[in-house]
Amino acid sequence: CDSQDIDHILETQSALAVDLGGTNLRVAIVSMKGDIVKRYCQSNPKTYEDRIELILKMCTEAAIDAVGLNCRILGVGVSTGGRVNPRDGVILHSTELIQEWSSVDVRAPLSRALQLPVWVDNDGNCAALAERRFGHGRGVDDFVTIITGTGIGGGVVQHNELIHGSTFCAAELGHIVVSLDGPECSCGGRGCVEAYASGLALQREAKRLHDMDLLMVEGLSLKSEEPVSAVHLISAARLGNPKAEAALKTAGTALGVGIVNILHTVSPSLVILSGVLASCYQGLVQQAVAQRALFSARAVRVVTSDLEEPALRGAASMVLDYATRRTY
Amino acid sequence: CDSQDIDHILETQSALAVDLGGTNLRVAIVSMKGDIVKRYCQSNPKTYEDRIELILKMCTEAAIDAVGLNCRILGVGVSTGGRVNPRDGVILHSTELIQEWSSVDVRAPLSRALQLPVWVDNDGNCAALAERRFGHGRGVDDFVTIITGTGIGGGVVQHNELIHGSTFCAAELGHIVVSLDGPECSCGGRGCVEAYASGLALQREAKRLHDMDLLMVEGLSLKSEEPVSAVHLISAARLGNPKAEAALKTAGTALGVGIVNILHTVSPSLVILSGVLASCYQGLVQQAVAQRALFSARAVRVVTSDLEEPALRGAASMVLDYATRRTY
Ligand SMILES: [Ca+2]
Ligand SMILES: [Ca+2]
Ligand SMILES: [Zn+2]
Ligand SMILES: [Zn+2]
Repeated sequence: CDSQDIDHILETQSALAVDLGGTNLRVAIVSMKGDIVKRYCQSNPKTYEDRIELILKMCTEAAIDAVGLNCRILGVGVSTGGRVNPRDGVILHSTELIQEWSSVDVRAPLSRALQLPVWVDNDGNCAALAERRFGHGRGVDDFVTIITGTGIGGGVVQHNELIHGSTFCAAELGHIVVSLDGPECSCGGRGCVEAYASGLALQREAKRLHDMDLLMVEGLSLKSEEPVSAVHLISAARLGNPKAEAALKTAGTALGVGIVNILHTVSPSLVILSGVLASCYQGLVQQAVAQRALFSARAVRVVTSDLEEPALRGAASMVLDYATRRTY
Repeated sequence: CDSQDIDHILETQSALAVDLGGTNLRVAIVSMKGDIVKRYCQSNPKTYEDRIELILKMCTEAAIDAVGLNCRILGVGVSTGGRVNPRDGVILHSTELIQEWSSVDVRAPLSRALQLPVWVDNDGNCAALAERRFGHGRGVDDFVTIITGTGIGGGVVQHNELIHGSTFCAAELGHIVVSLDGPECSCGGRGCVEAYASGLALQREAKRLHDMDLLMVEGLSLKSEEPVSAVHLISAARLGNPKAEAALKTAGTALGVGIVNILHTVSPSLVILSGVLASCYQGLVQQAVAQRALFSARAVRVVTSDLEEPALRGAASMVLDYATRRTY
């Protein structure tokens, strides 16, 4: 067997990636290089039973499709909201964004039904794994990822490995508190970074301004039954609405101060902002670091991720990292 | 040579420990078991030259005394305020609490003059090293120490090792920000834990209350020229002064929220409160964790250190750990 054949076989190694978010349940076939070969999306069911059943159904369909696409599936990687014990493949606790998703063994039912090894970690950690294998984190020993979507998640890589911590609460970066009595958060606390800078938080600000007739500005269109969202806040700010600008500035500053707290705790050399809001926040975060971090901490680089689908790619990387590691 | 003699020789191994704080310069002879055999204290000089000269003078005196006390000095450990590069033995940057103490090589002049190996780290990190070797941190893989004095320092131990981070700003736990616009801090920022809960911050509150004639309460005595200090605030609170109680509660809650942020970043199994104010704060910190940490993070233990002189003992432990480690 010549070396070209081995290369070809190695290239066909792939993973099934599952991403469980507050809104959607997504599955993808991801290749060794990180390409998303095929993708499946459904609403994330509200109950545990329906959710597990739908994951199995979508993974089974994907596994069948993979054969025709010449993708050899080595395992399943699951990215999910909530605190995860990745050693046992168990979700310990989720916030209200995903219902019936606490003390749930994900690995056992999936690996039994699909006859594949299963890895599980939380979405922020998966985003960091994606950066480590495919993104700005390549070759960087100590970095942090913050991913902003409906909520805010994160991952901390130290000495090239994710930190999980003794109770698997490490890198719950959305719940870093930057105000003793700030807005309420999905976790039940107050003043968390997530309560200021997540997609939900911006939507809340957009609605608040809209209710006071302060959102709309020349050039911004909103159809009569269209729900007000974070996108409208950002558009309004870009079109020069000072109230919208101020709301975005508060959000970005809160995120920046949360990142200053991370610098003063683990001191990474790189911070990667990920998710749809990343580019909105990059400048404000850099400003907060320049103004509020200790002198020695200001050397950190703050960049915006250029990876699409970091959670799916990171979920896949748990499978691919294992399959390609040289030592066992 | 029989084993008793070896034991005796090992027991006489000792370290010189130096502690550089905002007020005092202290030196001690510390034995293998962590006993402080002899101690020396002077005011910390305001200039670099005077400070180095006084360190050398005090260490030379201690080294001579050590001979008569049957202590074999293996090296010098230096604990100091500020950011430290322990690999090079250099102080990178200090806050205004210690003047002329940025970009300073401490190792070179000390090791040259004293002909001993020299280790340097910051005071919070030294406090954590003391706990690891002599205190509550023994046998605990992942823990955090917060030490409250004039300022607030900290150390983060992960997998049994201190984290320093890429720019040596890890574990600057006093400068975790818990309020977007809180009180001014010695670092130039605002809303840091240190600006709420350090000895200086409590003194500021005590003075504020005293200036408004709101501090004194039956049973509290203050001589006419005695400066108002944190001690008076604590005494007033204990004697039932509600304004003083409220000020302490704000301080302890701010510290607790800072600790919640540490839990959500590195998730240690143990938090050790150290320094004179530790026992004042323990209950408030536990309350903040119970109310504001993520469900999975609430399992952390929060204890008060029972070590005296953690900075000196930690400085010594850098020497003793090295001298007694089995692998090189
Ligand atoms: Ca995470
Ligand atoms: Ca420290
Ligand atoms: Zn929260
Ligand atoms: Zn500060």
